Amino acid sequence: MSLRFETKVQTLPWASGFLIDYQPVMADSDVELLPVAGIRLAGLSAGIKSSGASDLGLIELGSGTTTAAVFTSNAFAAAPVTLARQHLRARSPCYLLVNSGNANAGTGEEGLMAARESCAGLARLTGRETEQVLPFSTGVIGEPLPWELLVKALPACLDRLNGQGWRDFAAAIMTTDTRLKGCSEIVDLDDGRVTITGVAKGSGMIKPDMATMLAYIATDAKIAVEPLRALLLQVTRLSFNRIVVDGDVSTNDACVLMASGASGIAISPAHSAWGRFTDALQRVASALAKAIVRDGEGATKFVTLKVTGGGSEQECLLVADAIARSPLVKTAFFASDPNWGRILAAVGYAGVANLDVLGVTIHLDDCCIVRQGARAKDYREEDGQAVFSKPEFVVWVELGRGECKAEVYTCDFSYDYVRINAAYRS
Amino acid sequence: MSLRFETKVQTLPWASGFLIDYQPVMADSDVELLPVAGIRLAGLSAGIKSSGASDLGLIELGSGTTTAAVFTSNAFAAAPVTLARQHLRARSPCYLLVNSGNANAGTGEEGLMAARESCAGLARLTGRETEQVLPFSTGVIGEPLPWELLVKALPACLDRLNGQGWRDFAAAIMTTDTRLKGCSEIVDLDDGRVTITGVAKGSGMIKPDMATMLAYIATDAKIAVEPLRALLLQVTRLSFNRIVVDGDVSTNDACVLMASGASGIAISPAHSAWGRFTDALQRVASALAKAIVRDGEGATKFVTLKVTGGGSEQECLLVADAIARSPLVKTAFFASDPNWGRILAAVGYAGVANLDVLGVTIHLDDCCIVRQGARAKDYREEDGQAVFSKPEFVVWVELGRGECKAEVYTCDFSYDYVRINAAYRS
Repeated sequence: MSLRFETKVQTLPWASGFLIDYQPVMADSDVELLPVAGIRLAGLSAGIKSSGASDLGLIELGSGTTTAAVFTSNAFAAAPVTLARQHLRARSPCYLLVNSGNANAGTGEEGLMAARESCAGLARLTGRETEQVLPFSTGVIGEPLPWELLVKALPACLDRLNGQGWRDFAAAIMTTDTRLKGCSEIVDLDDGRVTITGVAKGSGMIKPDMATMLAYIATDAKIAVEPLRALLLQVTRLSFNRIVVDGDVSTNDACVLMASGASGIAISPAHSAWGRFTDALQRVASALAKAIVRDGEGATKFVTLKVTGGGSEQECLLVADAIARSPLVKTAFFASDPNWGRILAAVGYAGVANLDVLGVTIHLDDCCIVRQGARAKDYREEDGQAVFSKPEFVVWVELGRGECKAEVYTCDFSYDYVRINAAYRS
Repeated sequence: MSLRFETKVQTLPWASGFLIDYQPVMADSDVELLPVAGIRLAGLSAGIKSSGASDLGLIELGSGTTTAAVFTSNAFAAAPVTLARQHLRARSPCYLLVNSGNANAGTGEEGLMAARESCAGLARLTGRETEQVLPFSTGVIGEPLPWELLVKALPACLDRLNGQGWRDFAAAIMTTDTRLKGCSEIVDLDDGRVTITGVAKGSGMIKPDMATMLAYIATDAKIAVEPLRALLLQVTRLSFNRIVVDGDVSTNDACVLMASGASGIAISPAHSAWGRFTDALQRVASALAKAIVRDGEGATKFVTLKVTGGGSEQECLLVADAIARSPLVKTAFFASDPNWGRILAAVGYAGVANLDVLGVTIHLDDCCIVRQGARAKDYREEDGQAVFSKPEFVVWVELGRGECKAEVYTCDFSYDYVRINAAYRS
């Protein structure tokens, strides 16, 4: 039985460790998402989206699959989140049922009933218990979920289940995403080869009513549920918990990790290859997380915030978070304006106790802008400008207080951010 | 001798209490800022701003004046802030010297020297000690302060000092402000009448490199320095600490309260009229604070966030702060889109421990949008739309957990916010 556990998705606290720098192979039209033995998927239109676009995704978990999940820390968790938590606590899941186009959030008792009816409908068709289905929703908040439409589409959805269905599933869970987000890795272990494939949706929490972050990652390795839980916490903290678009936390966020065991290759922390496996899983999760930032609505820049020299990882994350959330810094990113005073001010108000500003050094890529707490003598505006004009760059803040460090990924704040979020319902 | 003390300007924690609803008389061209006996002011152009606009303000404090000040909590406090703190700790000030056009922040040792030279120049001309001058700066971060220009303009500035100089002074400290911000009150006490006049500058912390908040409030009442300190803390917490434009905290924020005693009317917490006096002072401070939000760059809406029913004031402020800082909520304000799901999500992630969402009720003015944690049954989109279309409205969140409450003032996030902040230096 899978145990329910939770971590804060998208917010502090983050765990320790550093991401390996890695250029992911994303799911462009010509990139294959590798099947994972023991996992079948489908996606189609159930008519929930008025556009007629694909809006219902289904994952079937083969017998013996272990499952772990993390959910949003938002107190206004949506009905499907509440129910998925209950179901995961009660039983080991056989199906993940995901709809887009409607978040089933802020819908009270009726919303819970709608989520339960959806699960019950699938359970009836497959001879399972209602608790063996985990429901997920993403879309508009506060509208009743048309669960009858959803249930009506389930037979067709079951018919289409197949191991090659990752792309169909990924398309079905998209809302305002402009790109399908998916990633595969093959890992050679001592006993043979296992596959990891993951897909995600989300435009980076910039629209909690429409841009919930959902991620589903599966492997055919056999992993007991306890290490699987620990593993998901570990990779989530260094991936989905390290991205900031605007600091808003959705009511519907979830990330699920599944291990089907269908490869017949068991792996645990006791194996020498465990590190290789977890590294690969981390790469998949980080690639998906970064893809969400890159697809952040209105985003034109991808910025890595690297904070080093902290007395604790927590204070490094405070600094990264202050920079990542500052609308002033984000508009300067957008304008390609190396307005280092804004970064300096954000470091100053981040909340690091007794910060000695004389210890602070700030670089934009290789260009030093602040040394000993003041503008670097050799800094030239055109050098900063050259870095800020790039589509991707690193802001590196050295605090000069200790050995701890942290890395966070964020994007800029553009006219389009306002346009998209202001115009969305008008 | 005035004692230095500090509170967090513009950030938590806020103190308890509620603002009296009050429509201030702002310093439009036809409104008079009343002279305060014992206080003389001047403002002129010293050539710091390349535009030639007024950029040097001076306040002379009559003998016997008591002074209290609060400064930014930003660790990267500007050089004048560092020096003003030192001077206020050492001596009772005779002059406040304020320049705009240059923040003298991020300028290291040279910046401290420039601020000290400015104070020393004024001290030499007036036969005072350097420590009797408090320096303040606002403007661009990281550029060397042209203190020689400033010192050169001091004789003319001293010549112009007069009791009617509030308007000249207020104009001299403006940067990106579009309106002069000032306010006067007359208070009838048992022994006679005293005057309170205050001026402020700032576009609401939306640009820490240019839009520092500075506020100067004076009265001709005689008040000992200890109650004056307590009074400033009290009114600051309920005014300047209750406004949020984007959560950025400037390196140069300061608020100064001066009591000249020139009216001959002494007042202390032991007097029966103390409450009347503090109410009037609170109205002045709140009017100035609200004027800053109203003049927030790009702001088109003025929104009062009222949170009630909290188990503590702190948790009410967490909720108000989450709403006020959410770019999603702020773009919805701008779009006049009653996107209540965004407000609900912000309440959910504000960090209130064990929030029971069933206890949450949310109103937009008189229109109930959320009841028992879900969309109100009788809510109609057009009613919400009508409220959000107004230039000023109240978002009222009732948490249903206790008797505590808090009120915060904020504005929307418009295209102009991005335009102004992205285009500023390009």
